[in-house]
Amino acid sequence: MIDLRSDTVTKPSQAMRDAARDAEVGDDVYGDDPSVNELERRAADLVGKEKALFVPSGTMGNQVAIRTHTERGQELVVDEQAHVVKWEVGGVADLSGVQARMVDCGPRAVPTAAQVEAAHVEESLHRPGTGLLCVENTHNSRGGVAVGVDEIAEACEAAHDLGVPVHLDGARVFNASVALGVAPEELTGPADTVNFCLSKGLGAPVGSILAGPEGFVERARRVRKLFGGGMRQAGIVAAPGLLALENVDRLAEDHANARTLAAGLDDIAGLSTREPDTNIVMLSVEADVHADDLVAACEEHGVAFGARDASSARLCTHLDVSRAEVREAVDRVAAAVGSLRA
Amino acid sequence: MIDLRSDTVTKPSQAMRDAARDAEVGDDVYGDDPSVNELERRAADLVGKEKALFVPSGTMGNQVAIRTHTERGQELVVDEQAHVVKWEVGGVADLSGVQARMVDCGPRAVPTAAQVEAAHVEESLHRPGTGLLCVENTHNSRGGVAVGVDEIAEACEAAHDLGVPVHLDGARVFNASVALGVAPEELTGPADTVNFCLSKGLGAPVGSILAGPEGFVERARRVRKLFGGGMRQAGIVAAPGLLALENVDRLAEDHANARTLAAGLDDIAGLSTREPDTNIVMLSVEADVHADDLVAACEEHGVAFGARDASSARLCTHLDVSRAEVREAVDRVAAAVGSLRA
Amino acid sequence: MIDLRSDTVTKPSQAMRDAARDAEVGDDVYGDDPSVNELERRAADLVGKEKALFVPSGTMGNQVAIRTHTERGQELVVDEQAHVVKWEVGGVADLSGVQARMVDCGPRAVPTAAQVEAAHVEESLHRPGTGLLCVENTHNSRGGVAVGVDEIAEACEAAHDLGVPVHLDGARVFNASVALGVAPEELTGPADTVNFCLSKGLGAPVGSILAGPEGFVERARRVRKLFGGGMRQAGIVAAPGLLALENVDRLAEDHANARTLAAGLDDIAGLSTREPDTNIVMLSVEADVHADDLVAACEEHGVAFGARDASSARLCTHLDVSRAEVREAVDRVAAAVGSLRA
Amino acid sequence: MIDLRSDTVTKPSQAMRDAARDAEVGDDVYGDDPSVNELERRAADLVGKEKALFVPSGTMGNQVAIRTHTERGQELVVDEQAHVVKWEVGGVADLSGVQARMVDCGPRAVPTAAQVEAAHVEESLHRPGTGLLCVENTHNSRGGVAVGVDEIAEACEAAHDLGVPVHLDGARVFNASVALGVAPEELTGPADTVNFCLSKGLGAPVGSILAGPEGFVERARRVRKLFGGGMRQAGIVAAPGLLALENVDRLAEDHANARTLAAGLDDIAGLSTREPDTNIVMLSVEADVHADDLVAACEEHGVAFGARDASSARLCTHLDVSRAEVREAVDRVAAAVGSLRA
Repeated sequence: MIDLRSDTVTKPSQAMRDAARDAEVGDDVYGDDPSVNELERRAADLVGKEKALFVPSGTMGNQVAIRTHTERGQELVVDEQAHVVKWEVGGVADLSGVQARMVDCGPRAVPTAAQVEAAHVEESLHRPGTGLLCVENTHNSRGGVAVGVDEIAEACEAAHDLGVPVHLDGARVFNASVALGVAPEELTGPADTVNFCLSKGLGAPVGSILAGPEGFVERARRVRKLFGGGMRQAGIVAAPGLLALENVDRLAEDHANARTLAAGLDDIAGLSTREPDTNIVMLSVEADVHADDLVAACEEHGVAFGARDASSARLCTHLDVSRAEVREAVDRVAAAVGSLRA
Repeated sequence: MIDLRSDTVTKPSQAMRDAARDAEVGDDVYGDDPSVNELERRAADLVGKEKALFVPSGTMGNQVAIRTHTERGQELVVDEQAHVVKWEVGGVADLSGVQARMVDCGPRAVPTAAQVEAAHVEESLHRPGTGLLCVENTHNSRGGVAVGVDEIAEACEAAHDLGVPVHLDGARVFNASVALGVAPEELTGPADTVNFCLSKGLGAPVGSILAGPEGFVERARRVRKLFGGGMRQAGIVAAPGLLALENVDRLAEDHANARTLAAGLDDIAGLSTREPDTNIVMLSVEADVHADDLVAACEEHGVAFGARDASSARLCTHLDVSRAEVREAVDRVAAAVGSLRA
Repeated sequence: MIDLRSDTVTKPSQAMRDAARDAEVGDDVYGDDPSVNELERRAADLVGKEKALFVPSGTMGNQVAIRTHTERGQELVVDEQAHVVKWEVGGVADLSGVQARMVDCGPRAVPTAAQVEAAHVEESLHRPGTGLLCVENTHNSRGGVAVGVDEIAEACEAAHDLGVPVHLDGARVFNASVALGVAPEELTGPADTVNFCLSKGLGAPVGSILAGPEGFVERARRVRKLFGGGMRQAGIVAAPGLLALENVDRLAEDHANARTLAAGLDDIAGLSTREPDTNIVMLSVEADVHADDLVAACEEHGVAFGARDASSARLCTHLDVSRAEVREAVDRVAAAVGSLRA
Repeated sequence: MIDLRSDTVTKPSQAMRDAARDAEVGDDVYGDDPSVNELERRAADLVGKEKALFVPSGTMGNQVAIRTHTERGQELVVDEQAHVVKWEVGGVADLSGVQARMVDCGPRAVPTAAQVEAAHVEESLHRPGTGLLCVENTHNSRGGVAVGVDEIAEACEAAHDLGVPVHLDGARVFNASVALGVAPEELTGPADTVNFCLSKGLGAPVGSILAGPEGFVERARRVRKLFGGGMRQAGIVAAPGLLALENVDRLAEDHANARTLAAGLDDIAGLSTREPDTNIVMLSVEADVHADDLVAACEEHGVAFGARDASSARLCTHLDVSRAEVREAVDRVAAAVGSLRA
């Protein structure tokens, strides 16, 4: 099976496995785990923030950030397709009591300054005030869009001018920096806090990083405990996470593979794609085939990915899929389409 | 001062005051208040529902409804300009833990079937399921739009086809029925539950009604207690509320007055309006004058209303403003504009 | 029927009804209602606080206070039998996200300094910090106990020494001041905020007062809006509330009646009471009769009150029950017991 | 340093480290991780439940359980010293909106049937109904008390008779089973669900198990996602967790060491202990020495543990502390006390 469901399926390398075995560990709830401490230091540096916090998942990183930034009863400005409001089980309202004011960012994926200003609410007797802007880069549900430095900066500046802090859901922010050829800090700098995943394209088995100012991270540590994210000898997973930080540059391969994949799929009659920015390929399926049926047929032919709705699907390249496998995947999808048509 | 800030400013008539004095009362928390019971019966009948509940405010009626319909962690589909997400202090997320999936309904004010379907989410491991559709009629923030029977029915039917119940924020639903010339039940029937205000255009001093199926209202009664809305000898305000139900037909006067007001304001250089559906007039102000300055100048000239943003304001006709006063208000606004220009 | 279920069943006097009819009113959400403003001023004075807020119920007064004082995730120290944790539908956790650290205050009804200190928690990575102490006077579920000035002061001082504010649920605080022969301020002064009910022994149809420092009341006003407690021409019920403030001294009659009632019931074989502090009589029923059966038999004999559990019941005197009716009630209960035994 | 702060400080054995390196893994959010699946199967069997869920921490296990069992606005009956209300950052109210009705279980550590019945509340218009009983075994804050089969069964039966489910916080339930010489299932069987920690005395680096009926665990899986506890290639930590299940029997050594430690400390003038049930030693300090000072002096002498309040401290034996080290610890504490007295 060529598994293109997500870059979350990547398995740890042998070096990562060895690092897990050999990790120096301690009780991280007491702050005693040297591997976690080292990971938090290096991760903070990488995205240009004062401090960082290791959390078990990207969802926890985002939800801890939102809860730490806001007070219940505030509003959050966010793209309506953002991961934090689409794929995180309603945590914004449920865990933080915050109302997401959703805006439609379209293919730009990040709000314009005008959108930020229009969505902003001044607290009053009747209205919840805006407490946070969330941006996402790369933007998952909009097709792995790599949002540029200027667009990110524009949104963040508009928020800051209104006294509103910004959290960047940078689960795949290194995909963006590699695709755009800019340093990660250029993308993360305009935001106050950033979350990124070690366990997606970077290949670590477990965990994400939430980084920001020292006082923020200290408060976030307590929210992490509340949500049940305080782990003990977490160095066992932090040590592979340290190696994952070395995998940033090789994301370029995933992007090249995604372009190859997209081009190959686009050549198949009845399917269409557009050139991907990063490692996510959005596939449109012509009306005579339901995406669920396509997915099922492909699985029978040895390619796994997921439907998004009746007429579209998402495929994801990652470090466990080679160029050759990508080409093979295209052939298998073509065969699957052929079998469906037959 | 001619007070056009809102139809909430209406003062009770002498008959309502006499009714307050003479009300038969009991302890409504025990269900013993005959005036409340009578009001709840007649109000339920008026909107064609099994049972009704008397609540201290429209905000409580809506928020009790949302909380009773949903489970925390679900989604609510709603126009982004709806009162429940714009003017109710973030209660949807704060009190119910529900995520509002906001859609832009534009001047139609109510979502199309396609919008309801697109916004609908099937519950999954990652996603909050859609638990409720909220519609609003007339739609306050969109200018008192009277949403037609077909539009309401289309939205409700789309929701019901997906197994999603519908709450109608009908704070001013009688304004809609009068404007459209249809029975209230034609507008409230497609929704499962409806909230309407006694203390807006109908002129009662205090209170709103939440109506729906018997089991729903029973559960809503407990939520009302939780929110602190259980009142004791509430007949004192329910009795005037009964008289308010007689004021439905005369809303036509408010609408005629609003048209006169809009036409008059539109004739003033620098101001523009569009013909109002009901009793709310949205006023656009040309760029050289800030709406806040216009409001201040008008107040000095004896007309009160509120700015909405830098270039627009809202005026509201109601039973305490006569045709002559509306004409006088136009003259005063003209004078205020003149003084600003000078 | 002689109704001894609660002092909430009192009906407004003719003077109160006239006041409702003749009330000067405005839109209280805009701060324009002169009767409400006057009531808030006089109520604040009466309990020695800077400002006051009129709310539709005692439950709302308490829950708004708790929410305004605390942050979610804090702890509240409170007697395990307190109204705020026993009869308010779980609002402390549900509406404020606050954990009630319940202590057993026994017949003293208010915690000792030692109990406050023992229950106090310093915020840490693992622990919610104590954010509020709640005391109740008179204490409803403990039998209308009038807590003395020294006991209240001791608890409040202990809290303040720990930096913890205090809210007094003074639903019946005037019963306490009258019973103890002290000015209300002596009982309310040690607490930061106080809630008292107009609609219990004071006889108003609707409403309670939340009083405290100016900044607190301003924030509480917004929470009241969130909970749906913002009413429009609330003067209709505030005006009778103003007259209720005149009813403080006559609570002594209710207390005398309660003593008469208790003594009379105590003389009935199989029933026992202890001398009540105020207007609440706790009745113990011998094991051969279930309290529910006693309540049912009494209702048939024309006396209404409520069972608390299998072997106890609560009766309440109030301004709608005269001395003669209290004596008649004793006779009827005796007859009911006789019929049960027969 | 001899580290007696907690059994959470245990470091993984070489076998566990090798297991981490060699673990077969997959994406556990998709249910694809064979090591996690195997751990969940074996853990469920061990405590006699249908299914189990691997979670990053004991706090998450408990809070997911509470949230899955209850509806917001309900009550939870629990010992006032229980971990879930004392050390989990207020999550019961904050994450679940549930009010903890705290009872004082004293040294018995688990409520009697009479306490369960007395604390139970029937849902009404005014009252939150009881939704869950939580018991804890061994009971951490009461000194590692091993609650017996009969006591656990009595509490659970009382709850079940009232229609209330039971969650067992069994973070150290194997310490109880070993100390009492009974099979784990005898202690876990009476409860509907159970949480136990792999990362305490059992020595795994990370993680806990929540076990219960199939439908419950399925719903708990979604709550885990909401709280951010869904991990990807979690097999890296699940594989050592599988080995931790082998460490149950050796807990007897920790208990013997704890008895040795307690006896030794008890012989030091100014200190007293009582014989521990399991691996937790509660130390009382005479009034002339503050526990914080004792802790500091001991740390200088090479023994680490934590103060609980001014006059008591807690020490914990575990697999990284040998009999010889325990004896050495006693000598060092004696020296520390001597230095404080000097």
